[in-house]
Amino acid sequence: MEAKYKKIKRSIKSKILEGLIMPHEKISSESELMRQFNVSRHTVRLALGELVSEGWLYREQGAGTFCTDRTNRDQYQSQENPTKNIAIVTTYISEYIFPSIIRGAEAHLSKEGYHVSIFNTNNKYDQEKQILSKILAGNYDGIIIEPTNSASSNPNLRYYLNLERENIPYVMINASYEELEPVSFMMDDVKGGYLQTKHLIELGHQHIACIYKTDDAQGQKRLKGYIKAHRDLDILLNPKNIITYQTENELSTPIAGLKKLLNNKLDRPTAVVCYNDQLVLRLMDYLREEGLKIPEDLSFVGYDDSLLSAISEVKLTSVIHPKSRLGLDAAKAIISMIKKNDGIRSNRGISKLYEPELQIRQSTIRLNKNLAKVE
Amino acid sequence: MEAKYKKIKRSIKSKILEGLIMPHEKISSESELMRQFNVSRHTVRLALGELVSEGWLYREQGAGTFCTDRTNRDQYQSQENPTKNIAIVTTYISEYIFPSIIRGAEAHLSKEGYHVSIFNTNNKYDQEKQILSKILAGNYDGIIIEPTNSASSNPNLRYYLNLERENIPYVMINASYEELEPVSFMMDDVKGGYLQTKHLIELGHQHIACIYKTDDAQGQKRLKGYIKAHRDLDILLNPKNIITYQTENELSTPIAGLKKLLNNKLDRPTAVVCYNDQLVLRLMDYLREEGLKIPEDLSFVGYDDSLLSAISEVKLTSVIHPKSRLGLDAAKAIISMIKKNDGIRSNRGISKLYEPELQIRQSTIRLNKNLAKVE
Repeated sequence: MEAKYKKIKRSIKSKILEGLIMPHEKISSESELMRQFNVSRHTVRLALGELVSEGWLYREQGAGTFCTDRTNRDQYQSQENPTKNIAIVTTYISEYIFPSIIRGAEAHLSKEGYHVSIFNTNNKYDQEKQILSKILAGNYDGIIIEPTNSASSNPNLRYYLNLERENIPYVMINASYEELEPVSFMMDDVKGGYLQTKHLIELGHQHIACIYKTDDAQGQKRLKGYIKAHRDLDILLNPKNIITYQTENELSTPIAGLKKLLNNKLDRPTAVVCYNDQLVLRLMDYLREEGLKIPEDLSFVGYDDSLLSAISEVKLTSVIHPKSRLGLDAAKAIISMIKKNDGIRSNRGISKLYEPELQIRQSTIRLNKNLAKVE
Repeated sequence: MEAKYKKIKRSIKSKILEGLIMPHEKISSESELMRQFNVSRHTVRLALGELVSEGWLYREQGAGTFCTDRTNRDQYQSQENPTKNIAIVTTYISEYIFPSIIRGAEAHLSKEGYHVSIFNTNNKYDQEKQILSKILAGNYDGIIIEPTNSASSNPNLRYYLNLERENIPYVMINASYEELEPVSFMMDDVKGGYLQTKHLIELGHQHIACIYKTDDAQGQKRLKGYIKAHRDLDILLNPKNIITYQTENELSTPIAGLKKLLNNKLDRPTAVVCYNDQLVLRLMDYLREEGLKIPEDLSFVGYDDSLLSAISEVKLTSVIHPKSRLGLDAAKAIISMIKKNDGIRSNRGISKLYEPELQIRQSTIRLNKNLAKVE
């Protein structure tokens, strides 16, 4: 069991990090803390003593205990610890296109003399909160972060605003929390979904399914592009061809949804656009078991142009993600923001929206109307 | 208990309405339905018989039972039933500014010979789904709808796309589901939140709390404006001054959050911007109990310039919502779309984004620095 005094320490630290206790604010009295945590005065004193000696709080004779102003820590820390630190936070680390993005950033940051720490949130707010706390408590000069669960309103916005108060610049990659209007490096995902769909329509497909993850803003935007392409090119959109899923169901919903569509006798889709290449590969396994061939039985368009797309048995047509270039641009931006030492506003101009392009490979085919009718 | 054959009918109808069974698609065989619902052949035949006689399904000798193509129903229905029907769907009906919006729309629609049906979703997806099913099953020429829970990805998008397939135009008011790029009538809510905050900063306030509902896009955008105003006017934003809440906690979270802020000794807010006037009035009750006065102890800016803002004991400074004008514009738009009988794309130009203005009344006051220091 956690010692009681540690629980008190953790609670006070976390309030400071979330900005709920501000610099020079007086904290609750010993008696209040005793009541709140149901502990002895000795335990409270132990907790406060450590927080003071660790620099989180300071005491003023006869007045009480106050929260330290940590905004000036750059000065004293640079003497103690001359290392320059950057945190890179992504939803996932070891998988898929994330290594390329991180590598792109890391190479440049190392060259510039920065030490890089890597974190991942697993696309969960709780973990994002813990990581932001760690970063705020630690000794970081800047953060490159991929938003977690970006399609919903983020409960951790206060941590980002606290980063700004503490003068720790951050840039966002792949998506952004709109309320913050951060410096960001992302693809034009509406355009990306549009390109995926338009390509298939131009190949003669009329019944095109889409499978998008919609707890991230990327998926929402790609879905918007998919709908838009149907409208612009005057193709009647069949609502049942839209399959959406959340991160926690990524292993079940897409396959179940596609299976159902393929069981239809009528208007069965002849092509599918996917949230990313990883999803296409997962579906390929299923199609193989069912004896269906790509692209003869079903065309597929992926997204991200990942390594997977070029090494899979059928090379994937996919939307090109800037990957390591995006990582590099984000790294350059964060260094420039650290050096300029201004707010977000004066830096907003360095944001980039990458124009997507389609890499055409073997997973899409011109629709042969005779073939499509054979059931 | 619901009769078994009714359950089968309901299930098939709901699939048709969601677009999961398409026009001219063959439905499951009698034996499949017997297995699926665990009922006798007699029960299945009873259900299918009624669905055929009600026009949902049709039979083809020797081939099976199929889904009726309802897109042409305008023709036969206009003979049977010459009434012109419009549905207005809002998150709430009887409360607050909704009556004005609805009245604005209703007056014009009646004049043009339309019958208006009013629905409300209580800001719940489930209820929205049921209402959209009813509308799709019914005899409506068009819909004016306020999106439910608009800050998240909507699970009912298929119903909207099915409306388009069935050639039933819809316009959205107050917010929009971005993926659909609908014709919409809404305020510039980023600007609105900006105006609320800027007004207070110009009155000398530096510690301004905000209390916004963030399950609706309106609240998210207002929060963005609040943050932006701080940055543009170079006021340090204190993260703990941001209070956000969801519809289900609207009675508890705002008061609890404000209470906590007012207990602070340091950097206690001198002003509050609120999601809407209704919220300000709820908080007024609490402040009265605590013996705090508006605006002397705390300035407040509301939103919507509702009737409440002018009749409350302290008249509220508030952002003007176009209310009945917005209703009227939406009504004109839906009629024009019904007459033109085109898709959304060709109509998108009729959307309106209303520029917010501030109505200054008595709930805000220039900050008297001496007063503010007295605690």
